[in-house]
Amino acid sequence: MIFTSLPHGLSEKFASKCLAKGVKMIDLGADFRLDSAEEYTKWYGKKYEDETLHTQSVYCIPELHRANYTGQPIIGNPGCYPTSIALGLAPAISLAVDNTIVIDSKSGVTGAGRGLADNTHYPNCNEAFAPYKVANHRHTPEIEQTLSKLCGKKVNVTFVPHLLPVNRGIVSTIYFNVNKPVTAKQLHDIYADFYKNEKFVRVLDLGEVANLRNVKYSNYCDISLHFDEHTDRAIVVSTIDNMVKGAAGQAIQNMNIMFGLEEECGLQYIPPAF
Amino acid sequence: MIFTSLPHGLSEKFASKCLAKGVKMIDLGADFRLDSAEEYTKWYGKKYEDETLHTQSVYCIPELHRANYTGQPIIGNPGCYPTSIALGLAPAISLAVDNTIVIDSKSGVTGAGRGLADNTHYPNCNEAFAPYKVANHRHTPEIEQTLSKLCGKKVNVTFVPHLLPVNRGIVSTIYFNVNKPVTAKQLHDIYADFYKNEKFVRVLDLGEVANLRNVKYSNYCDISLHFDEHTDRAIVVSTIDNMVKGAAGQAIQNMNIMFGLEEECGLQYIPPAF
Amino acid sequence: MIFTSLPHGLSEKFASKCLAKGVKMIDLGADFRLDSAEEYTKWYGKKYEDETLHTQSVYCIPELHRANYTGQPIIGNPGCYPTSIALGLAPAISLAVDNTIVIDSKSGVTGAGRGLADNTHYPNCNEAFAPYKVANHRHTPEIEQTLSKLCGKKVNVTFVPHLLPVNRGIVSTIYFNVNKPVTAKQLHDIYADFYKNEKFVRVLDLGEVANLRNVKYSNYCDISLHFDEHTDRAIVVSTIDNMVKGAAGQAIQNMNIMFGLEEECGLQYIPPAF
Amino acid sequence: MIFTSLPHGLSEKFASKCLAKGVKMIDLGADFRLDSAEEYTKWYGKKYEDETLHTQSVYCIPELHRANYTGQPIIGNPGCYPTSIALGLAPAISLAVDNTIVIDSKSGVTGAGRGLADNTHYPNCNEAFAPYKVANHRHTPEIEQTLSKLCGKKVNVTFVPHLLPVNRGIVSTIYFNVNKPVTAKQLHDIYADFYKNEKFVRVLDLGEVANLRNVKYSNYCDISLHFDEHTDRAIVVSTIDNMVKGAAGQAIQNMNIMFGLEEECGLQYIPPAF
Repeated sequence: MIFTSLPHGLSEKFASKCLAKGVKMIDLGADFRLDSAEEYTKWYGKKYEDETLHTQSVYCIPELHRANYTGQPIIGNPGCYPTSIALGLAPAISLAVDNTIVIDSKSGVTGAGRGLADNTHYPNCNEAFAPYKVANHRHTPEIEQTLSKLCGKKVNVTFVPHLLPVNRGIVSTIYFNVNKPVTAKQLHDIYADFYKNEKFVRVLDLGEVANLRNVKYSNYCDISLHFDEHTDRAIVVSTIDNMVKGAAGQAIQNMNIMFGLEEECGLQYIPPAF
Repeated sequence: MIFTSLPHGLSEKFASKCLAKGVKMIDLGADFRLDSAEEYTKWYGKKYEDETLHTQSVYCIPELHRANYTGQPIIGNPGCYPTSIALGLAPAISLAVDNTIVIDSKSGVTGAGRGLADNTHYPNCNEAFAPYKVANHRHTPEIEQTLSKLCGKKVNVTFVPHLLPVNRGIVSTIYFNVNKPVTAKQLHDIYADFYKNEKFVRVLDLGEVANLRNVKYSNYCDISLHFDEHTDRAIVVSTIDNMVKGAAGQAIQNMNIMFGLEEECGLQYIPPAF
Repeated sequence: MIFTSLPHGLSEKFASKCLAKGVKMIDLGADFRLDSAEEYTKWYGKKYEDETLHTQSVYCIPELHRANYTGQPIIGNPGCYPTSIALGLAPAISLAVDNTIVIDSKSGVTGAGRGLADNTHYPNCNEAFAPYKVANHRHTPEIEQTLSKLCGKKVNVTFVPHLLPVNRGIVSTIYFNVNKPVTAKQLHDIYADFYKNEKFVRVLDLGEVANLRNVKYSNYCDISLHFDEHTDRAIVVSTIDNMVKGAAGQAIQNMNIMFGLEEECGLQYIPPAF
Repeated sequence: MIFTSLPHGLSEKFASKCLAKGVKMIDLGADFRLDSAEEYTKWYGKKYEDETLHTQSVYCIPELHRANYTGQPIIGNPGCYPTSIALGLAPAISLAVDNTIVIDSKSGVTGAGRGLADNTHYPNCNEAFAPYKVANHRHTPEIEQTLSKLCGKKVNVTFVPHLLPVNRGIVSTIYFNVNKPVTAKQLHDIYADFYKNEKFVRVLDLGEVANLRNVKYSNYCDISLHFDEHTDRAIVVSTIDNMVKGAAGQAIQNMNIMFGLEEECGLQYIPPAF
């Protein structure tokens, strides 16, 4: 079994070799996340070279897709933003009015990777804050793919990520109008019920607010629920550690699914770094 | 002439004394911002004690309301969030579909004031991030009052502020659907024209993104325009220094209006602190 | 068995009760650290109320004092600065020229405690840096007590702590002149040998530099050795996590000594916070 | 008149051209700081290519060397660390016991320059702290050159710089033993008198502690004086903004000297950046 984390476009060759040798693979890159070859080409500027490979892979946010894992040799490990957002929207997606979903996400600087760049040079991002790739981030089609499948129709969202001057963690503040009357309490009940058997999703009590501080160095996703009565708009705050639930931690969770282990195996203690 | 910055409910008495002595007053507190006595009571838990005082005051974001200043002895200096938001929405408010405005704001820690509190204790807010007073912040009625007057009908917004681990600066990311077809270029032209004579509002070129780093220690408001074509949603990023354009700097600008001076007088160089 | 962490002057009463009930106690406060009642009074402004209690307690940095634990019911858990400094100086204390030891320490903000204070208000300590209690910190007598006992004569040091804008971690940069010719390699060998059986002290390879980043959320003390040939001065950099090896982690290590457990028991994984 | 800020070894050619055209030059690089060609070669790995150029240049920390400026066409602008240290030691250098000077400096990240590097990648230096180039930094000979000239004999110092997770500012904590009895008050008087006519050096009142927060975005050097009676050691804390008094601000101050202008000309307001 192998974990891969390659720049997009490089995982297919690796996958071919794995399959030829009967080795399972969990890909932390973007090459096995999108069903649509056209969407992949549109956002990544490359074509799938071997489409049959993709029939042997499955995209898996465990809490939403573990039933889809039926022995495929390849798992496409989800992106960090899409994980925070899909977990934050899944329980209520059928409640959202079409085309009212706005997602304002903020990510710590490790989200930008280890490569050196002007925007992650300390004096440039410390004591600074701004969005980037406004409504134009590559994670948008991955987010819409998950949400569309969940509710059985095409879902469009506006997604704007921001660079947050902290080392790690993502907070996604998610807004949508509701298609039938709902109270904050009812909204909370829907989420609490949806995740009642999940170890890694914590639905906070009404009145609490999710804070990335409480999920750092863990595989948890914390979700708080809010309702703006004077605009009939639901507000969901979903936070994860982009390095754990948003990447390597979720990959381990997926490996546990792949091998029939307890999902929390190896995830109780996360060695801190950064 | 006197600047006051008092906890709400304490400015009226001060204002009475000023008026009795013929002294002009610019109030940085909340007591002269809201037209509606009911709204004031709803959000601040107090009543106006002397309503006649409020007929002698004017609320003034200079770029939007300077024409309203006709010699009143009291100016209600705007709040920090409302300044960043009203400037970011004013040019396009008639273009916004009713009840689609979502405002996701992030403020540096000086926005919470000098008073000691758990949430501003360094280890609690450093390497942390979360919203607060979700859809329940006192600046909401001030924002809606300004926007409603600008477009001549009641405007409701969803407003969610977040505490950002930097010393100073506010970034408001503002979302709304448009009621007629518009391109990013046209959106930009509308803003560029609206602010063409303003010294303190800089409409960035298309493709640029407003960053609080560029307005720190200045009275500028930087605005960048974006358009999400696949959801017909406009996105405006508006950033100010909460301590300058969001408070004392704007108060000086208002003083200049009050006394017929050049508005940029005393505002070219801001003494840095923090 | 009970851990106590009380403001100075309050632990004695608690200790009396523990002893009366046959309960062991590890005190994280300052009341059982100093042998000398006069020094205690000089620095803490109080007298020991029951000196016999202090004959039943032992001060214990495990790597230096575990042999001193002979069943006492009370352990005085060391201070954070003294731990980083004593571990950094112990192997070479007999090599230091009298009165040449200078200790320049820097501590993260959790070192100041949970209590709210002006100097830990975020905008006051973020993007700031300064020493405090210059050559006048209460940990000075504790440092000198440990060093004096180690080398059998009175050792005086200059100790200056600084407040570092990070959440956690202490770096002590320690300077002293050597009383006989020594190379960096020899200095390194002395330390490597001294700590060769220790699990929680890591003597870094020559050429490496200790960084608090590598000890955060752990019970490790990392030490790097340096030598300034043109002044015959040794430089030791010693870093710990003030919340773990500098407080609760070391208390657990001491509890393990008290009860004859493996010292690393319960210390392999530190639950991150802050 | 031209300011140059080139990597070492590139300024000489530029200086030749300037001299040929009768243009004055202030060099912010390292090529005109050291008198000794051997020291330059030792630390920078290059030789002076045209030694006559160096006879036409002068090194100038204005408060210490302005009398040395007698019309030279080239000024070697001092390094950031040497400025904070020389200003912190100059008044008392004759009071220091030989070979007891220890300098522990901490610099904000802009001190490392605009170039991208692993150690200035945000997640690597945020929430981290460590020394670098321990007792081996290129500014050491510049520091010793200034101090040696001030007291008329060779001065050796131990100098250890640290990377501080803030954008800007240097704090140098300087330790030395005194060669005759002195009180903190007397030490303070010596400094206050030495700098009594200086606009840009502020000797703080006894009991105050210099903090980089108060010199950010300014050309000030703040100095606080302390005395450790139990070791007869003086402690001086000297802080500057490395981007202003430690670089461009001091270059402007030197330009003012070069052209006979008031030294504070152009330095009252520093445009903030970062």
